[in-house]
Amino acid sequence: MTVPTAHLASVGTCLPGEPVDNATLAKLVGVDETWAEMFIGNTSRYFAVDLATGQVRHSLADIAATAADRALAQAGLDPRDIDCVVMGTATPDHLMPATVNLVADRLGIDNAPTYQLQSGCAGAVQALDVARTLLLAGRCATVLVIGGDVCAKHLERDFDPGTRTSAELVNYALFGDGAGAAVLSAEPLGPGIAIRQVLNRLVGLGREPGQIIDWFGLGDRHSDRPAVSEDYKAIEETVPLLAQQMFWELLGDLGWGAEEVDFLLPPQLSGRMSDRISAAMPAPGARRINVVRSVGNNGNALPFLQLAELLEQWESPGRAVAVAVESSKWIKSGIALERS
Amino acid sequence: MTVPTAHLASVGTCLPGEPVDNATLAKLVGVDETWAEMFIGNTSRYFAVDLATGQVRHSLADIAATAADRALAQAGLDPRDIDCVVMGTATPDHLMPATVNLVADRLGIDNAPTYQLQSGCAGAVQALDVARTLLLAGRCATVLVIGGDVCAKHLERDFDPGTRTSAELVNYALFGDGAGAAVLSAEPLGPGIAIRQVLNRLVGLGREPGQIIDWFGLGDRHSDRPAVSEDYKAIEETVPLLAQQMFWELLGDLGWGAEEVDFLLPPQLSGRMSDRISAAMPAPGARRINVVRSVGNNGNALPFLQLAELLEQWESPGRAVAVAVESSKWIKSGIALERS
Repeated sequence: MTVPTAHLASVGTCLPGEPVDNATLAKLVGVDETWAEMFIGNTSRYFAVDLATGQVRHSLADIAATAADRALAQAGLDPRDIDCVVMGTATPDHLMPATVNLVADRLGIDNAPTYQLQSGCAGAVQALDVARTLLLAGRCATVLVIGGDVCAKHLERDFDPGTRTSAELVNYALFGDGAGAAVLSAEPLGPGIAIRQVLNRLVGLGREPGQIIDWFGLGDRHSDRPAVSEDYKAIEETVPLLAQQMFWELLGDLGWGAEEVDFLLPPQLSGRMSDRISAAMPAPGARRINVVRSVGNNGNALPFLQLAELLEQWESPGRAVAVAVESSKWIKSGIALERS
Repeated sequence: MTVPTAHLASVGTCLPGEPVDNATLAKLVGVDETWAEMFIGNTSRYFAVDLATGQVRHSLADIAATAADRALAQAGLDPRDIDCVVMGTATPDHLMPATVNLVADRLGIDNAPTYQLQSGCAGAVQALDVARTLLLAGRCATVLVIGGDVCAKHLERDFDPGTRTSAELVNYALFGDGAGAAVLSAEPLGPGIAIRQVLNRLVGLGREPGQIIDWFGLGDRHSDRPAVSEDYKAIEETVPLLAQQMFWELLGDLGWGAEEVDFLLPPQLSGRMSDRISAAMPAPGARRINVVRSVGNNGNALPFLQLAELLEQWESPGRAVAVAVESSKWIKSGIALERS
């Protein structure tokens, strides 16, 4: 009996509008340009909202549908070929309907199961994990996987630079918006990339959350409680450790040696952090794929942006390992790919 | 080769505080008592918030953890026996961390995959669907499934009855809070109930959403856009149709006759609506399990409350069918159980 395998058939991405560089950010919201470059290490990011006017120009459904369209085109598939849609996001357009269903409507997908995961930086891997499980259980032949985030609702509408707290300024320099999508198939399709393993593990027992992103309802929206908080010290200390653990767990699980990894896709927190985490991951022969420096931390979209770059560069047989870490309640996750 | 089967091992539930009856609701928020009984058909509901003081007494994590504890105890399992946790909710405590991870922390579950679905009235079935798929793919032996909703954030804090719109009053009479949980296992455990089928299908193509529940962020929380809207006419017309379709699809898929259904768990919208939908579902010999009349529409919790009642009543071999319909972007879902 052949062991069923899930394959990565294609990837599509969407970044809203024009890149916002540090000089523009300095002018619009008062982030210090040199500081953003030195301490965050991001040079640009994209926003679904026009920072100059406060106008929301793209919803999550908009950019997710565009990314999905591109992934379908790349795989040479029609929406009718899709058996199921799985999406991950921390920032859905609404609580209900789930954004995945608005995206399915745009694409013309109907009468299919859809799932939307409430997830952060490990969300893309979680969505790929659910999609792969659906394929391995024989429930589907072709699954569309989507990840994306839009921070427009959390960006204040009045842009008087003088009133920003330093935490808010960090967030402008750190975060961004974007979406990505991938088609997974039971039979090899496109570049013939097999998904050898996906691991996804909550390791938050007894640990304080490293990141909290909150929402307000009709009843509590005028309260003053904070909407976003991060424990940067815990993130700096813990993410590299969890990334290394996941890297070794994936290799150990598959019996791969670190020197056999041709491409490494490390966790994408910020340009500076990701360089540091990447340098500490011992894959001597691997090309490193970092994208956060130029696109900003757009959460559930980032691993898809890395995978898109991977497919651009990957032309011969080999192995790739991607690791994502979520600092909310601490999740380590990763995916191992093989091109034959 | 034996076809792998998922089993329902146990169910646990949690309803916060004391039931709030129509007389109390009339006094506190100005809902007309007779009207609530006649047009909604709910006699009581539970709230995580104290309506008299506005104090939030329970989070979703609180009641979900209690329901999960009860399901584990019922199955005679320890949290360490759980390989994976799947949760469905429309109203997470935060956007990040996902509430499922706070619940796992309370229970002492660590180093396991967790998934939280952003889902509404079909969410419990979606969560059971993902759990079953994990079991069928051989990825897990024992999965904890949770569903729950808490509408505290959307309840206005000032309870001056004179200022309520009629839509708000309907919502007080209609909705409630609660949580439920179930343990699913690859090997039969407890009452020996096999999950024969789970179906979950988005059928929203080209249909306007029947229900929108929105959230506010830091940047847009003072805006006046509505937080909750429903198209009751579309709901009244469409839910009974989708419920009947799903009922027949489940039976057709399994080759079961309608007269072979011993228990029917119809969609739970409101006491009045559910009676009407139930009456239109042709299962001549089936005992009907409706719970919404006394607990209110608590979304992702409702099917678990029906399943708990089912396990109470179910003492001999037979078949049960549960149907849930989500009016957000229109999802029909159902589950078929068999006791040997």
